[in-house]
Amino acid sequence: MNVSDATFDLLEAEFNAPSVRNPSAALPNRQWAEDAAAKQRAGVPPFPPGVVAARPAFDTKKMRELLDMNNFELRDSLYELFKNPVFVPRYNETLDEERARTIQRWRLIAKTGVFHEALRIFTVKGRQRYEATLESVGAIDHSLDIKMGVHYGLFGGTVSLMGDDDQGARWMPKIESCEMLGCFSMTELGHGSNVKGIQTTAVYDIPSRTFVVNTPCEEAQKYWIGGAFQSARWTALFAQLYVKGVCHGVHPFLVRIRNEDGTPVKGVTMGDCGAKSGLNGVDNGRIWFSNLHVPLDHLLRRHSQVSVDGNFTCNFKSSDERFGASLASLSGGRVSVAAGSLIQAKLGLTIAIRYGLSRKAFGPPGEEETRLMDYPGYQTRLIPPLATTFVMQLVLNHLKSKWQRRELGRELHVWSSGFKALISWHALSTLQETREACGGQGYKAENRIAPLKSTHDVALTYEGDNHILLQTVTKAVLPEFVRGFKNDGNFEGHFSYLNDREALRRVDLSTTDPRSAMYALTVMRRREAALFARLAAEIQKKIAAGMSSLQAFNHSAVLVEDAGRAHVDLLMLQLFHQTLSDLKSRGETELVNILTLCGALHTARLIDSQVIFLRNGALSAKDAQNVHSNVQIFCMQLRPHVLHLVDSFGYPPHLLAPIAFDYVSHNSRSRL
Amino acid sequence: MNVSDATFDLLEAEFNAPSVRNPSAALPNRQWAEDAAAKQRAGVPPFPPGVVAARPAFDTKKMRELLDMNNFELRDSLYELFKNPVFVPRYNETLDEERARTIQRWRLIAKTGVFHEALRIFTVKGRQRYEATLESVGAIDHSLDIKMGVHYGLFGGTVSLMGDDDQGARWMPKIESCEMLGCFSMTELGHGSNVKGIQTTAVYDIPSRTFVVNTPCEEAQKYWIGGAFQSARWTALFAQLYVKGVCHGVHPFLVRIRNEDGTPVKGVTMGDCGAKSGLNGVDNGRIWFSNLHVPLDHLLRRHSQVSVDGNFTCNFKSSDERFGASLASLSGGRVSVAAGSLIQAKLGLTIAIRYGLSRKAFGPPGEEETRLMDYPGYQTRLIPPLATTFVMQLVLNHLKSKWQRRELGRELHVWSSGFKALISWHALSTLQETREACGGQGYKAENRIAPLKSTHDVALTYEGDNHILLQTVTKAVLPEFVRGFKNDGNFEGHFSYLNDREALRRVDLSTTDPRSAMYALTVMRRREAALFARLAAEIQKKIAAGMSSLQAFNHSAVLVEDAGRAHVDLLMLQLFHQTLSDLKSRGETELVNILTLCGALHTARLIDSQVIFLRNGALSAKDAQNVHSNVQIFCMQLRPHVLHLVDSFGYPPHLLAPIAFDYVSHNSRSRL
Repeated sequence: MNVSDATFDLLEAEFNAPSVRNPSAALPNRQWAEDAAAKQRAGVPPFPPGVVAARPAFDTKKMRELLDMNNFELRDSLYELFKNPVFVPRYNETLDEERARTIQRWRLIAKTGVFHEALRIFTVKGRQRYEATLESVGAIDHSLDIKMGVHYGLFGGTVSLMGDDDQGARWMPKIESCEMLGCFSMTELGHGSNVKGIQTTAVYDIPSRTFVVNTPCEEAQKYWIGGAFQSARWTALFAQLYVKGVCHGVHPFLVRIRNEDGTPVKGVTMGDCGAKSGLNGVDNGRIWFSNLHVPLDHLLRRHSQVSVDGNFTCNFKSSDERFGASLASLSGGRVSVAAGSLIQAKLGLTIAIRYGLSRKAFGPPGEEETRLMDYPGYQTRLIPPLATTFVMQLVLNHLKSKWQRRELGRELHVWSSGFKALISWHALSTLQETREACGGQGYKAENRIAPLKSTHDVALTYEGDNHILLQTVTKAVLPEFVRGFKNDGNFEGHFSYLNDREALRRVDLSTTDPRSAMYALTVMRRREAALFARLAAEIQKKIAAGMSSLQAFNHSAVLVEDAGRAHVDLLMLQLFHQTLSDLKSRGETELVNILTLCGALHTARLIDSQVIFLRNGALSAKDAQNVHSNVQIFCMQLRPHVLHLVDSFGYPPHLLAPIAFDYVSHNSRSRL
Repeated sequence: MNVSDATFDLLEAEFNAPSVRNPSAALPNRQWAEDAAAKQRAGVPPFPPGVVAARPAFDTKKMRELLDMNNFELRDSLYELFKNPVFVPRYNETLDEERARTIQRWRLIAKTGVFHEALRIFTVKGRQRYEATLESVGAIDHSLDIKMGVHYGLFGGTVSLMGDDDQGARWMPKIESCEMLGCFSMTELGHGSNVKGIQTTAVYDIPSRTFVVNTPCEEAQKYWIGGAFQSARWTALFAQLYVKGVCHGVHPFLVRIRNEDGTPVKGVTMGDCGAKSGLNGVDNGRIWFSNLHVPLDHLLRRHSQVSVDGNFTCNFKSSDERFGASLASLSGGRVSVAAGSLIQAKLGLTIAIRYGLSRKAFGPPGEEETRLMDYPGYQTRLIPPLATTFVMQLVLNHLKSKWQRRELGRELHVWSSGFKALISWHALSTLQETREACGGQGYKAENRIAPLKSTHDVALTYEGDNHILLQTVTKAVLPEFVRGFKNDGNFEGHFSYLNDREALRRVDLSTTDPRSAMYALTVMRRREAALFARLAAEIQKKIAAGMSSLQAFNHSAVLVEDAGRAHVDLLMLQLFHQTLSDLKSRGETELVNILTLCGALHTARLIDSQVIFLRNGALSAKDAQNVHSNVQIFCMQLRPHVLHLVDSFGYPPHLLAPIAFDYVSHNSRSRL
């Protein structure tokens, strides 16, 4: 098993919430989940009440495997573990209770041995197992997967990626076993997105062969550090490295912040970040350093080294390059955030769509009331986000594979930034729509959607503010566009579609199949090309008028973001249609058919919801009217499949909510 | 004072959360608020750190009075009362604690005597005082104003509006003094928006001269009833009235549900609705009735009467008319919801804009970092919702006046439905934007924005689901359009602008001042006219194809909502420009100038964010490009005024949050 029981014994004693010790205390009524499970055991699918089962038009098991990619049995076994009363969601708890429960749950996950050697042995399989674990946990308790992700992924990931092989061999086993429990100290009160500007200093002191770490001002206190308030004994500290009076920029160190008994080490002060909108199982904290001495060999030295007598060496030519490499673990963070966002969206959709299938309201006078899902207006609220969720999951799977294969280049940076931004905003709007679609029941904690929404919200700004991430995308891609432009309009790579601009212009959308790749890519490319051309011109104009290139960029912020979004939308549709053609070549006709419809609805809705396509002439007002009609047509075409589509997300009943099943019985007087 | 101490003594004993008894227990650090108050006392405005005070371009006191309308001293005195430790916001509490604290706070508000005769004497002034009180309370604790609003407004309002004069005289004094504490039992588990379909029955029993009330099935349990789980002794019950075997539809009754000691009366069972996303200070509950006998004279008989021997009489010709009249108190509910939404939006904007003025991030290499509010991209995120908030507040003020004057007609219904929908969605997007704009600090509970957001969310679906409310608007307005259409294109009332269609078509937007009423009304009218014409045609076509008119309406749901939204957007801009010309005629040039800019930005942003204007030809792609540029231009023009604009909302420091002031000091180690 190789899990440090000592660590968890200590933590459970420190996280002092006696009410958590007894996992059955005040357990909410879960009869609805037991009823559904009993049906399943009897071979009856637990459809929402009154729903007649139609034969699915596609193999839901195959679809689930396409979405989840790997480790299906592991995922199912974790879902099974979540039947343990310790994992039952609770919604009326104090910070102390939530934090204690998170520790208690972590122990149970760790005890399964799933993390053993998962981080040390850098195989694709190891990473897949690790990510499948965090994703499964994310479906029951997002605080818990974040708490574990901070320790294994951010802290452990920094040690393994930034430390050299010796350092990895020395510390990683203890990190996997939780003997060394850590956090990730990058952001400060004064510096969140602008990580380069952090102010904590680590000054190499030759006589003592240590780095002296200090918090020079209040804005330099480490802030939002998950695990820092209570559980972490160690941290991966990012600080400005000074050697012989020269600043070499931000570097990572492995630093002890607490003794094993939980008391802070001398020179370190910790504080609480307090209650948040969600994720309250994570004890985010603040850290101040005062002349803390860190041994020389605790500089994580894969990229930079300091010799005993104070010589600084670095594997990279420029400080920017080195800094870029040291942020690789953040790309992984964004992949996880995007994956987490989709999990919350899938749960919200499953719950809301099942409710919409059974809940009735209004109807013809004297007749039975109509099911919500049979109202076209209701369909246009929930089915488009469902379609987009399928598209985005398949797109994200490309990014996950890239990350698992450790392709750490520029593409990973652009994809992870762009996908994290658009996917987390998609989850936000989806959870909001599902919450409203369920009316008051959507506002009730036990139905999960509202708490999922509050908890998910942080995804929009952590691991990079979404707006800034989109700007990052444009910053990375614009030079490529400008290069082609300057090269007499001969474009390479992504923009090579512009080498035949006439062909792009010639496509007649009114006669092109709106479900085809041709249609989607044409509209997206027209928009992207128009925006990048305008942006390049605007920046040039502003520079000619005397602005610095930074000012010119900042003063074009709206256009910069629009261009970034256009690029990411296009990338996504390229990757999605690539998946479709892979499936086609494998003869998966059923999957291709249903996913083509999802892609068509996603595309139509995207075009229909943004003025920018029309404003930039990517399509005509007449085309726009067709697109608008298509949204409703595709919704109607997907309507018969919605139950099987959400079922293929693979979440068992006990991860869902009462309104996804027989909510009337659940609310009956006899269950008071 | 005339407040029933006995009631509150009992309630405080019943709401059992000992931690609440001591209001200073675990009080959060409020030094930031005290520092700001000390500055104010010294005559120094507590601007965000580093902000240099410019002379405001308008009188902020006059602006505040324009926004708040009346009872300025009362509002300020309540804000002063909120300095009492009992009112300090707390964010780490259980349901029991939140509920207990709400009772404790209610008592303090009631003790001020502000509700004395506020409901009984139906003067405009009385209603204004009542509403000013609830609005002020809404700025510190939304649970509390809802809790009080349910008792005084929904319960008391039903007794006073639906009861006859004798009934009012008999019960209203006890309701005002809280001697009779009540709730409002309309919605059921199975029927929320579709109130007509509720299933609770009240059958008149001649021998006993009582109505026998029953919950005939589980879906008929009263659900979401604020106050029903714990505090209410009485309820305004809505049930299907049966007399001599004939169902006369939904009628209101005054019904006792608990004895004075808090135990349920025989025949009544109550249950908890449990934890919600917010508003947890309100003990929403469920109620079942079993052969409960209600005295004959407890039928609220302003509109319908039943005689001792079972003769039913009604002041209205049709059951629909009577039902419409009995829903008048719901119009008032929607006015309050809209007002509450704007309060949350104003708080969020004040906090976020002040933070954006002091928070720095990134900047030119080697120079000081730039304040967020000086990034054009950041301005386009926060300044448009600020402008819209001013517009919507002034528009809502027209509706509030109408409601206070008791103009209970069709216009009240349409305005309250439409404004509630668009204003609550506006608050949703504003709170979301402010939360993201503040990064992690926006996710932190003590900074208020995230909890305001969670709490506000219910506004989107209670007192009518927003989508259904927009459909309601269209349903009410479409016949007027069709009438004009059938009358050879001679329109009356609202649509009379269509009598000169050529003039509407002729306006050249490219040469019209985009800040003018002409510009705004032209674009909005073109859209409205196009949508209503299309809707009328589509419904006609569907009916011709064999659908019932209900089916035709439902199958045009997207168009129906679009038309409703177009109507409400137009109404709002008409009312806003009416306010502007009133101000102009009063010589308020400064206010007119700044508000004209707010209106211009609101209009430009509205057009720029919805495809529908372009798709329906309300403006050309070239005009759309101008509008898009104008959004940024107007933002830049408003930028110098943002601090004074949020200051004119009139919220004192202790209602705001640490990040609105010196958040670095607030987070300093010395304040741990």
